[in-house]
Amino acid sequence: MATSPPIKFGILGCADIARKVSRAINLSPNSTLYAVGSRSQEKAARFAEQNGFPESAKVYGSYDAVLDDPDVDAVYIPLPTSLHIKWAVLAAQKKKHLLLEKPVALNVAELDVILAACESSGVQIMDSTMWMHNPRTAKMKEFLSDASLFGELKSVHSCFTFAAKEDFLENDIRVKPDLDSLGALGDVGWYCIRSILWAADFQLPKSVLALPGTVFHKSGVILACSASLQWEDGKTATFHCSFLANLTMGVTVVGTNGTLYFHDFVIPFEENKASFSTAVKSGFTELVTGWEPKPSQHTVMTELPQEALMVKEFCRLVGSIKFGGAKPENKWPILSRKTQLVLDAVKVSIERGYELVEVTS
Amino acid sequence: MATSPPIKFGILGCADIARKVSRAINLSPNSTLYAVGSRSQEKAARFAEQNGFPESAKVYGSYDAVLDDPDVDAVYIPLPTSLHIKWAVLAAQKKKHLLLEKPVALNVAELDVILAACESSGVQIMDSTMWMHNPRTAKMKEFLSDASLFGELKSVHSCFTFAAKEDFLENDIRVKPDLDSLGALGDVGWYCIRSILWAADFQLPKSVLALPGTVFHKSGVILACSASLQWEDGKTATFHCSFLANLTMGVTVVGTNGTLYFHDFVIPFEENKASFSTAVKSGFTELVTGWEPKPSQHTVMTELPQEALMVKEFCRLVGSIKFGGAKPENKWPILSRKTQLVLDAVKVSIERGYELVEVTS
Repeated sequence: MATSPPIKFGILGCADIARKVSRAINLSPNSTLYAVGSRSQEKAARFAEQNGFPESAKVYGSYDAVLDDPDVDAVYIPLPTSLHIKWAVLAAQKKKHLLLEKPVALNVAELDVILAACESSGVQIMDSTMWMHNPRTAKMKEFLSDASLFGELKSVHSCFTFAAKEDFLENDIRVKPDLDSLGALGDVGWYCIRSILWAADFQLPKSVLALPGTVFHKSGVILACSASLQWEDGKTATFHCSFLANLTMGVTVVGTNGTLYFHDFVIPFEENKASFSTAVKSGFTELVTGWEPKPSQHTVMTELPQEALMVKEFCRLVGSIKFGGAKPENKWPILSRKTQLVLDAVKVSIERGYELVEVTS
Repeated sequence: MATSPPIKFGILGCADIARKVSRAINLSPNSTLYAVGSRSQEKAARFAEQNGFPESAKVYGSYDAVLDDPDVDAVYIPLPTSLHIKWAVLAAQKKKHLLLEKPVALNVAELDVILAACESSGVQIMDSTMWMHNPRTAKMKEFLSDASLFGELKSVHSCFTFAAKEDFLENDIRVKPDLDSLGALGDVGWYCIRSILWAADFQLPKSVLALPGTVFHKSGVILACSASLQWEDGKTATFHCSFLANLTMGVTVVGTNGTLYFHDFVIPFEENKASFSTAVKSGFTELVTGWEPKPSQHTVMTELPQEALMVKEFCRLVGSIKFGGAKPENKWPILSRKTQLVLDAVKVSIERGYELVEVTS
């Protein structure tokens, strides 16, 4: 099989997270760091120098210049959420494939504008939810999909918190209503919602109820919140997300026959391997003095870190379009949209004083 | 120090759980199996024979006979919850100290009648929440109490489910509204609520909201439910309890500095040791490719199983009253009452269609 040339990436902006994704683009075998644009040419040059860009890489003093470069195949957009609609739509119009940071948009209406632009240009869009691409995720899905092991899903709980430092709480874009008005719900709640939908085979809940106790920044942005989700068939889920508590990333998925849990769902404790625990038809010993069988732990190795696998899969799809005449893969925008729909419902529930909100697609 | 004679236990009824507690009474150094009463003399005799009662043990054909035996110091009451008020009050009136199965009563009003009877007779009451007595529990409390390690409590999630068999769902007293009308909320939700209160230093929440999605038995008894709790200072908790999903017992406690989690909170996986994981000031490695520091696991050994430690502590208190002229220890009835108060609030919230219910002591 002839190897296609690598997909040429342009990076819009020099966000911290772009450093990690630049490394991933370098690690992935089917992509190359081709250009970076910042509002400051100097900042872009420094970013390129410090993040493994080749000597030949283009360094631009604007985002527009990246989009206007005809050799850029795909862009990675780590800009503040409120800027996504402008730059994602522009990028799509310029026929650039889109790896878009999460949360993908301020709301599903904005996302739909982005998705329409992508569809109209025939470009691939994928959100940058890295853990979806860890081989552990597929392995866990095997477990959840095995009716004899896991059975029918009954409940999920997901928690993602981290303790933001004082400087973050004063200055980070994620506490600025004009930049990232979704706050902790958009930044960490996104992952909780995605993990719940993932466990539920991306079946949308019929309703969402935010739980009393949302903490707001003085700017009005959400710093911590919780919500519960309900499905037609009786399964339920809860999540908690926060900028105000120690770094914690736990997911517990309970089915009629089995249980799955892991404590590092977004960022595995270690880069080259990730573990999870499963329990099947758990019971007690005689006189209920212990468990029989006990849960077991499984470890999945990965040669490439999950973010490089994400880039690799994205570029595989982009390559199929560019070199193979394929259509964009619909799965990814559908997952983005479902996640955003639930996120919107949580926000509406909070705004309405913890009213039950129906989720309609 | 002279050793006091062991506390003489009478068991009311031959419930399955009484087998485990009988063994615990035998294992504990300060207690002895003295009598068992059942509505059937034959059943009582068989129970005594199969559960390590000494030859000299009294076998009675009624509960009353146990209470009328002047040599019985304390009774263990594993009867259906609806019978607690009758038999616990009678036992207290007969000056028997009370080890009472959970849920302690159908509601706090009934519990208050029991507690008043205990107070008036000067007898000790303790509910049979065994995990409270595991040395792991004290070790975890040390962690939660250390401000530099754990900081301020922000959120708790607790989950206890088990997959009841068909026979259970047809015939067990826990699905019979006239016997155990609290269903899964009383049987397994009790533990979730206790674990949350334990993590919150037994500070009562200001409000409780049951979450949509309660599953009811055809008899009307709760088979699965969830709830959220809110405190004045902003901390929150959620729990999920169910008879309809694989055996799962997870607690996650998140503070400003630290995190605690464990997956066998009610019954440890193994009898002679129990583990838990803690994380302190968790952060990421450079480029967010892993955790630094990672959580660590701790294992606590125990010579006696937790239920024997419970019996031992109960008998220590009873002995202090009987032989040392001490007053009953108030801590235990206070914990029972707080747990019941929250449980009642969850039930009321469900009955009112998921209304927020204030918790008033």
